[in-house]
Amino acid sequence: MGIGVSMKRVDAYEKVTGRAKYTDDLAPKDALVAVVVRSTIANGLIKSFDMSEAEKVPGVVKIFTCFDVPQIKFPTPGHPWSTDISHQDVSDRMLLNRRVRIYGDDIAAVVAQDRIAADKAARLVKVEYEEYPVYTRMEDSMADGAVLNFEEYKENILKKTCFKNEGASFDDAAKEDGIVVVEGLYDTQTVQHCHIEPPVSFAYMANGKIVVVSSTQIPHIVRRVCGQALGIPWGKVRVIKPYIGGGFGNKQEVLYEPLNAWLTSQLGGRAVKLELTREETFAFTRVRHAMQISLKTAVRKDGQLVARKCTLYSNQGGYASHGHAIVMNATSIQRMLYHDEKAIEQEACTVFTNISTGGAMRGYGIPQGIFALESHMDDVALKIGMDPIEFRKKNHMQNGFKDPGTGIPCHSIGLAECIEKGKKYIKWDEKRKAYANRTGDIRYGVGMAIFCYKSCVAPIALETASCRIVLNQDGSVQVQMGATEIGQGIDTAYTQMAAETLGISADNVYVISTQDTDVTPFDPAAYASRQAYISGTALKQTAEIFVEKVLAFASKMLDKPCDTLLIKNNSIVDKNSGDILLSMENLAMEAFYSLTDSVHITAESTYHSTDNTYSFGACFVEIEIDIPVGKIKVLDIINVHDSGVLINPALAEAQVHGGMSMSLGFGLSEQLLFDGKARPLNNNLLDYKLPTSVDTPELAVDFVETVDPTGPYGNKALGETPALPSAPAIRNALLYATGVAVNSLPMNPQKLVEHFKAAGIICKDGGK
Amino acid sequence: MGIGVSMKRVDAYEKVTGRAKYTDDLAPKDALVAVVVRSTIANGLIKSFDMSEAEKVPGVVKIFTCFDVPQIKFPTPGHPWSTDISHQDVSDRMLLNRRVRIYGDDIAAVVAQDRIAADKAARLVKVEYEEYPVYTRMEDSMADGAVLNFEEYKENILKKTCFKNEGASFDDAAKEDGIVVVEGLYDTQTVQHCHIEPPVSFAYMANGKIVVVSSTQIPHIVRRVCGQALGIPWGKVRVIKPYIGGGFGNKQEVLYEPLNAWLTSQLGGRAVKLELTREETFAFTRVRHAMQISLKTAVRKDGQLVARKCTLYSNQGGYASHGHAIVMNATSIQRMLYHDEKAIEQEACTVFTNISTGGAMRGYGIPQGIFALESHMDDVALKIGMDPIEFRKKNHMQNGFKDPGTGIPCHSIGLAECIEKGKKYIKWDEKRKAYANRTGDIRYGVGMAIFCYKSCVAPIALETASCRIVLNQDGSVQVQMGATEIGQGIDTAYTQMAAETLGISADNVYVISTQDTDVTPFDPAAYASRQAYISGTALKQTAEIFVEKVLAFASKMLDKPCDTLLIKNNSIVDKNSGDILLSMENLAMEAFYSLTDSVHITAESTYHSTDNTYSFGACFVEIEIDIPVGKIKVLDIINVHDSGVLINPALAEAQVHGGMSMSLGFGLSEQLLFDGKARPLNNNLLDYKLPTSVDTPELAVDFVETVDPTGPYGNKALGETPALPSAPAIRNALLYATGVAVNSLPMNPQKLVEHFKAAGIICKDGGK
Repeated sequence: MGIGVSMKRVDAYEKVTGRAKYTDDLAPKDALVAVVVRSTIANGLIKSFDMSEAEKVPGVVKIFTCFDVPQIKFPTPGHPWSTDISHQDVSDRMLLNRRVRIYGDDIAAVVAQDRIAADKAARLVKVEYEEYPVYTRMEDSMADGAVLNFEEYKENILKKTCFKNEGASFDDAAKEDGIVVVEGLYDTQTVQHCHIEPPVSFAYMANGKIVVVSSTQIPHIVRRVCGQALGIPWGKVRVIKPYIGGGFGNKQEVLYEPLNAWLTSQLGGRAVKLELTREETFAFTRVRHAMQISLKTAVRKDGQLVARKCTLYSNQGGYASHGHAIVMNATSIQRMLYHDEKAIEQEACTVFTNISTGGAMRGYGIPQGIFALESHMDDVALKIGMDPIEFRKKNHMQNGFKDPGTGIPCHSIGLAECIEKGKKYIKWDEKRKAYANRTGDIRYGVGMAIFCYKSCVAPIALETASCRIVLNQDGSVQVQMGATEIGQGIDTAYTQMAAETLGISADNVYVISTQDTDVTPFDPAAYASRQAYISGTALKQTAEIFVEKVLAFASKMLDKPCDTLLIKNNSIVDKNSGDILLSMENLAMEAFYSLTDSVHITAESTYHSTDNTYSFGACFVEIEIDIPVGKIKVLDIINVHDSGVLINPALAEAQVHGGMSMSLGFGLSEQLLFDGKARPLNNNLLDYKLPTSVDTPELAVDFVETVDPTGPYGNKALGETPALPSAPAIRNALLYATGVAVNSLPMNPQKLVEHFKAAGIICKDGGK
Repeated sequence: MGIGVSMKRVDAYEKVTGRAKYTDDLAPKDALVAVVVRSTIANGLIKSFDMSEAEKVPGVVKIFTCFDVPQIKFPTPGHPWSTDISHQDVSDRMLLNRRVRIYGDDIAAVVAQDRIAADKAARLVKVEYEEYPVYTRMEDSMADGAVLNFEEYKENILKKTCFKNEGASFDDAAKEDGIVVVEGLYDTQTVQHCHIEPPVSFAYMANGKIVVVSSTQIPHIVRRVCGQALGIPWGKVRVIKPYIGGGFGNKQEVLYEPLNAWLTSQLGGRAVKLELTREETFAFTRVRHAMQISLKTAVRKDGQLVARKCTLYSNQGGYASHGHAIVMNATSIQRMLYHDEKAIEQEACTVFTNISTGGAMRGYGIPQGIFALESHMDDVALKIGMDPIEFRKKNHMQNGFKDPGTGIPCHSIGLAECIEKGKKYIKWDEKRKAYANRTGDIRYGVGMAIFCYKSCVAPIALETASCRIVLNQDGSVQVQMGATEIGQGIDTAYTQMAAETLGISADNVYVISTQDTDVTPFDPAAYASRQAYISGTALKQTAEIFVEKVLAFASKMLDKPCDTLLIKNNSIVDKNSGDILLSMENLAMEAFYSLTDSVHITAESTYHSTDNTYSFGACFVEIEIDIPVGKIKVLDIINVHDSGVLINPALAEAQVHGGMSMSLGFGLSEQLLFDGKARPLNNNLLDYKLPTSVDTPELAVDFVETVDPTGPYGNKALGETPALPSAPAIRNALLYATGVAVNSLPMNPQKLVEHFKAAGIICKDGGK
């Protein structure tokens, strides 16, 4: 029951039966309810409040405004922290904000006995504003004379960075004889995570601390940010994270926990619950950044990439959130996946507007970057008349690669095999031949895209993780991990890792699913596809220490040298003969209850890493396109992943399914829309077109298992990679089916019909 | 803010404001409610149930009977466990019992949506019994032909033990010329703990475990007993202990948690709450054993004790509970407190009857033993015409003593100083002179008693304790102790110990008050006055390891040798110059967030002890006795304690106050009464005469601080000692005031009037 077994999720029964307890289930019976009062303009300043009507609502306990809260700015993103000030996140939020920068900004909070009273009072709060112009488009907010979101920047640009590899320039490289230059502009839309459970937390005071129970991916970071936001020592905050109903990066941000923590501190420590509605979640938490990405490639006619230039603009919305990191990531992929012989030139810019704030979302900029890059690569291959697969095989990353920007190295790569598997599955050559003739209303295409993704955040940022293992009297163990189960199944993977290294069966391993910052080992937590790779190594290392301690005790009991013993199948076994010498249970009982030398065996350790490695994969897709109605039907799709050794193949497959679904929505239908006043138009699950099961094709998944030398069990990232490639693969299939390059997402019917009209394959009046 | 400071309790604010959460506060909103159906006879066998009416009650979910539960016998007492089968506790209970041995025995359980439905259904369960004779008195249950509580014993005697020191006999010793032999029979009554919060727990299933949240002193033992009772691996049980509203030993027994754990397992893991009423708590949990203690002493005329013989009979009630351990304790005190030159002969017998089962209660047999011993010592002193103080000073334990029965050694003793302090406080010589003339209806007396008590259970049983300390980013720490706060204030003492050894301020120490057996270090928990002495040593040892780790990290940061550094006032300080080099906060931040070598500093260790030591003290009391109404008024009372170094003098004093109050009730008013059918007559707080504040005199407290070499900070036991001496001190004062020896507790008006009539100091018809 160790590595490589498709064991059932450890939380399957709980979650299927509804027994599993989530944050709201755990809220005290008598918790007060807080509701945030939101600005009804997207850019401006609060002049005053009129609370007279709101305060009359029966059940209202207290209303707090932006004038009441501590005037402390704090950062919200889920980064571990840096002791280097220049690497710390931007502090630009207060608990409640007088200067509003998005529609729906947090300006006051009503605390009431129940939700109905709180909602009613929130609606009755009257606000007088000073209004500023509203910018939804980056070109407008960057225009001369635009009102600045933050006075401390000279323009509405959070940050602009450049990368250029030394001693080379695109223009020089492009001068080479017979070189072909291909250009493209690719843009992606605003989408939202749409996790099932909205952000919810409750806070109360106990034991000299403010306790926050929250549906978060990052309990230890929530602790830190609450401390910062309230201006109190971080140790005075305790954060507990129960089961959570998804996050996808939106809960890698500390949004309302600090407000909630402060509210309870103002109300004598009474429990206060703050749960967002779906509508609030859509527009007032975080979204995936809309990006505009220009790519320009110099390529030889034989397909050798020579130089590439790219310019990225990312619509950050109102606040810095994760800052420039996401557009940096979208930029880095442009130099990682392919090897250009000579020059790489890059410019990246994060632009403030007044739409919903962009933040972390599964893929962290790479879905946008990969859409641009992989669309562009097909454009390049098309231009030089080369098969897209052959073109990619000629140029993609090879083992030993090291990114010149981040230093992230490639320690293992199964990309070529992924491409081969996908090519075979989709019957590439046969289908490309069959679909070459583009005629009729219904056309067909096959397309593909490849991707890579790093396995953690090192060496760009801190990678550290701790684990504690505790022996029980029956020989079973608890494993305490700071890295969080957020629906991805990591607790099951940890169970298998522990079973593997400890030599005990998986049913004797209890991974503590709830994190409690007071007692749970430190770990920045669930993001960046790092848990199995980094925290998994902490687990393995701690398990090895635990085994040493167990064998030392066994050695005393058995009077045999430690190095002749091992743990196998829940027993101490003679390494040489294989004889079973002692059960773990008997050993544990003696350890606990020895009258001469009792010892409660536990192990705890920290793993610090400055290394990293890449995961890879390819997506192949076959589509049918109904030209007149602009409707793409995905007939077949496969993701083939190299994520190193699979800890649990069935869970790996499920993880890929989820990512593919997300990527399909990103490619085909999802888009959060705003009007000219930056008011969200479709922030609900009826009007926002998240794919349903009816919209989703059968999803095929395959793997190429490399053994990565830096992964604890040869494993690499798999959390985010599945969400990367569907959109460009479909776009490329569409290009093949129609000859039309759709460089803008989503590829929904309205957009496709416009493109087909422009391309003349349907008449402008809608006829054929 | 370390050792010896009267800092405010760490939980004071929480408890005073009502913010502190107890078990019932934490029960889920939708918890089902279980009520125990109880036998209406005290001795017999269930023949059948008729559930037809009970099951019709709306809201009833399910009714379980003794015929449904696993047929597994399990032990209930809170002892850690022994790997030696002969030292394991008696397994004589099942979750529900067909063979009933007390009135109110657990025979079925109703689970319903709410308490009202459950109570109603419980009343409607009809039971057919086979009835046996009922025994409330030991002489009846021990009589030939009595029906046995348990077939496996030949008589209604759980155990009988003898002790005799080698090569000597009482009769031989008593043959010495001029020896005086004094005899007495002393008996004590059944009393109950009367903790504020009745036993309450709720259980549910989560993460593959049965979780029991319980108001218990002994979470790790509850885990073990639940595992045994349900026949499942112990690791499959998780026990959580929140704040508790007192226990005094009654929650050192695993009474209803196993039933509750089993109920949830039968109901799909839904939460089930089981809370006892006050009436149930009084009679159907545990009580202090009524004991009959015969003492016979051979003494020289100069006051030198020569030999003593004692015979103890303890009324165990229906079940074994803590077994013979409590009467053994009551016996051991008879050879510990005084040094008899020659022979000690002892016989101890634990007798089954059908009254409420005796179990652990503060003092664990010693209040009974001390009442007998200290009453007897006054009788002996009186007989030889010696001042009771001089007599005691001549004979009491001296440093270096080692109990011949248990091997428990005396490492420090301040008893003589305690006696001197008390004697001076009460103005002994002056008052004894003043009150020597016994005339009139209102008379006066001064009396005293001394006591000793061990500081843990070693070497008789296992003493082991673990602790974990976790560093926070702000330089504060969590301290995780397996030993429980049960109202005694140990979390505050631990805070001070940690502050002392860590060199950080007490407000930077957070002792985790809630125990959770999945993650809390192992410790048998709160009983036997062991927490500050044993678990405190685990804390000190772990804190020293923690300091080493911190200094090792500081040494790297500062590039200075470890041994030149220490932690003081939350900073790393140069040991020689006293210069402050680095704050704990800066050190912690670097440890957490170092980009090259992060490490999350924690420490964890187990302390195993086979040593022990004695605490001592003396009680002095001045009383007024109203002869015609038999009413004793305590005019003045002082306890002077040698408990070694005081961790927190104010808390120590509060601890003594509580114990004195308990001892006064034991001496003067409390008694749980049964009728001939063993039905409790006064199992409520109206009819059971617990002293109220109106009944309680001012309580004076003083200390003699010895420095015990085996205590972590020179400290010794203080948990139980305060409850020991008031009763005999009052009895001796009454003897002095009236010349009447009242050898039976409680000394309530009814009993005193009877004694005074018998002694002829009031007329038999009530006149004078």
